[in-house]
Amino acid sequence: MNQPARITVVGGGSWATAIIKILSEGNNHIRWWLRSQRDAGHIRKFHHNPSYLSDVQINPRKVRVCTKIKDALSTSDYIILAVPAAFVSDALQGVKPEQLAGKSIVSAIKGMIPEKNQLITDWAEQEFGVPSGRVAVIAGPCHAEEVALEKQSYLTIASQNLEFASEVAQFLNGRFVQTSALDDIYGVEYCAVMKNIIALACGITHGLGYGDNFQAVLVSNAMQEIRRFVDRVYPMQRDLSASAYLGDLLVTAYSPFSRNRTFGHLIGRGYSVQSAQMEMNMIAEGYYAVKSIHEINRHYGVLMPIMEMVYTVLYEKTSPVLATNALKTVLK
Amino acid sequence: MNQPARITVVGGGSWATAIIKILSEGNNHIRWWLRSQRDAGHIRKFHHNPSYLSDVQINPRKVRVCTKIKDALSTSDYIILAVPAAFVSDALQGVKPEQLAGKSIVSAIKGMIPEKNQLITDWAEQEFGVPSGRVAVIAGPCHAEEVALEKQSYLTIASQNLEFASEVAQFLNGRFVQTSALDDIYGVEYCAVMKNIIALACGITHGLGYGDNFQAVLVSNAMQEIRRFVDRVYPMQRDLSASAYLGDLLVTAYSPFSRNRTFGHLIGRGYSVQSAQMEMNMIAEGYYAVKSIHEINRHYGVLMPIMEMVYTVLYEKTSPVLATNALKTVLK
Repeated sequence: MNQPARITVVGGGSWATAIIKILSEGNNHIRWWLRSQRDAGHIRKFHHNPSYLSDVQINPRKVRVCTKIKDALSTSDYIILAVPAAFVSDALQGVKPEQLAGKSIVSAIKGMIPEKNQLITDWAEQEFGVPSGRVAVIAGPCHAEEVALEKQSYLTIASQNLEFASEVAQFLNGRFVQTSALDDIYGVEYCAVMKNIIALACGITHGLGYGDNFQAVLVSNAMQEIRRFVDRVYPMQRDLSASAYLGDLLVTAYSPFSRNRTFGHLIGRGYSVQSAQMEMNMIAEGYYAVKSIHEINRHYGVLMPIMEMVYTVLYEKTSPVLATNALKTVLK
Repeated sequence: MNQPARITVVGGGSWATAIIKILSEGNNHIRWWLRSQRDAGHIRKFHHNPSYLSDVQINPRKVRVCTKIKDALSTSDYIILAVPAAFVSDALQGVKPEQLAGKSIVSAIKGMIPEKNQLITDWAEQEFGVPSGRVAVIAGPCHAEEVALEKQSYLTIASQNLEFASEVAQFLNGRFVQTSALDDIYGVEYCAVMKNIIALACGITHGLGYGDNFQAVLVSNAMQEIRRFVDRVYPMQRDLSASAYLGDLLVTAYSPFSRNRTFGHLIGRGYSVQSAQMEMNMIAEGYYAVKSIHEINRHYGVLMPIMEMVYTVLYEKTSPVLATNALKTVLK
C-alpha cells in the first residue's frame, strides 16, 4: 500500500468541502484550513460543514481542522487551494516562500487574481517560488453538489510536469471520482476561467428569452472563441473536446447548479449587477474573470464576441437586449 | 428582388411543419406533401397542421398542400425531404429519376436508410440520379418546437458544392433563422445521425441516476468518438466545434424536447424497447441509427464505446446498469 499523502485543503466553501470528501475516500492525511472559527468549531464538534454541503460527513480520524494557515500548511506536502480567486491572496497572507519549500501547490480555483490578471498557478509560482514542475490544477466537469451525492464524476489534473499531474491524480482517484492527467496546465486553467464567462452569456440570453437552439449555437461558438484564445496565448497541440475543456464548459453552461448562469440570468431579466449580487449572496467568478480576460486580450486582440458581449453588459452598462442583438448576427 | 424559389417539402411531421414556417417567411412558392389525407384536408380548411406544431399558421397564399407525390414534385426546383428515415423510401415510391431531372434534393432527415445503412443523400443520388452538386443537407441545432415559437435559431446547409449550399441557405434565411453554408456534407450528415445515438446514451444513463457531471464527460467523449469516426470514414479538414456538429449534438443531448433522450431515459428506467416505443408513440431515430452505425463500423473498426453501449443495450438485451458500469471506466 502507498504511503499516505499529506495534504492541506485551503478553503471552506462547497468545492473545498467536496474535495475533502474525495480525499477522505483514500489513504490520505488531511488538514483542512477554514477562515471561519465558527465553521471550524462546528466541524470539529458535529463533523459536517454548517455552511456548505452540510450532508457531507467529515471523518475526524482523517481530517484535522485548522484556522491558523501556518499550522495547516506545516506538515503537508501538497497544498490544494480552493477559495474564490479574489480571496486566495488573503487566505495565504503572511505565508513565506520558505514555509512552502519542498511543497507542491494544486489549484482548484477557477478564476484569476483580479488585480493582477494572473492565473492562480502563475501567481503561486511567482509569490512562493514553487517550481512549475510541482504546480498543478484540478479541472472538472465537477459540480461539488454531485460529489456530495456520490454521483460518478471525473477530474483532470493538469501540470507542465505530467508525472506530477499523475501523482495528484492518484490520490484524488476513488470510488465515485475517476481522474486522469494532462500536460496542458495553461489551456486547462484558461478554459476553466473562460467557461464561467460563457455561463454568464448563457444566463443572460436565457434570461432574455432565447431558447435551447440559441444556447447550443452560443456554446459551439464559445468553444471556437476559447480555442482561438488559448491557441494564441499558449500554443500547443491540444484536444479541446476533452472533458477538462468541453466537459467543464458544458457542466457550467447547462447546469442549474451553476452560479454564473444564475447570475447571468438575473442580468438578462433586468437586474443591475449590484442587485444580482445581493440577490445571489454569492460570488459569480465569471464577473471578475471577464474583466481580466478583456484586459489580457487588449494585448492579443483575439476575436471574442461572446466575451465582449458579457464585458460590455457587466462593465459598460450596455443593455443586454442590444448587446445580444449585435452578438446574434455574428454567431453561426 | 430575387425570383421566388419553387420548393416542395415532403413530410407531415413537426420538422416538416417548422420548415414550412421558415420558408413561408421568404419569397418562396411552396408545395407541401403529406401522406395523411385527413391532415392535408385540415390544413387546407383551417390553416394549421392538426397533428404537429398546431400553433403554426399556414399561409394558403404561399403554401399549396398536396397528397399526390408526383403533383407535389412536378413544378418545384428544390425537394426538401423531411420524413423519418425509415419512411423516405415509401414517401417517394413510384417516383422515377426522370421526374426529378433538373431538380435539387435537400435532406432534412437525421437518419439513414435502415435496411441499406446508407446516408439519405447517398441514397437520393443513387436512386434518382441527382448529381452530388445538387444535393444538400439541412443541419441544426434546431428544435422544431422552438422554430414554432420564433425563437432565434441557426441552420447550416452542407453540400459538396458550396455554391449550392449557399443557394439553399439563402432561401431558408429569415427573420428568426440565420443560415450558413458548409462543404462537409458527409461529416454533417453522419454527425446528425450519431447525435441521436448519443442522446439515447444520455437518456439511458440519466434514467439510471447519473448526473450532470457524468453527462458532461459523456458528451465530451462522444465528440471524440464522432471525430474518430467521421475522420476515418470521410477524412477532410473540419472544425467539429461548429454549430452543425457540436451544436446539433448539444441541443439533442441536453434538451427536454429530444425524443431520443426521452426514449433512452425510459430504457434506463427499466422499460423494454417495446414498452418504451409504445409509451412514446413516436420513433426515436437513434434506435435505427445505432444499428446502422454498428454495422458500418464493422468495416472500419473505429473505437466507439458509447455507440457500442447503446447498441448492446438496445439490440443485445445487455442490462443498462452493466453496460454503463463497463462504459464508465473507459471514459475520462
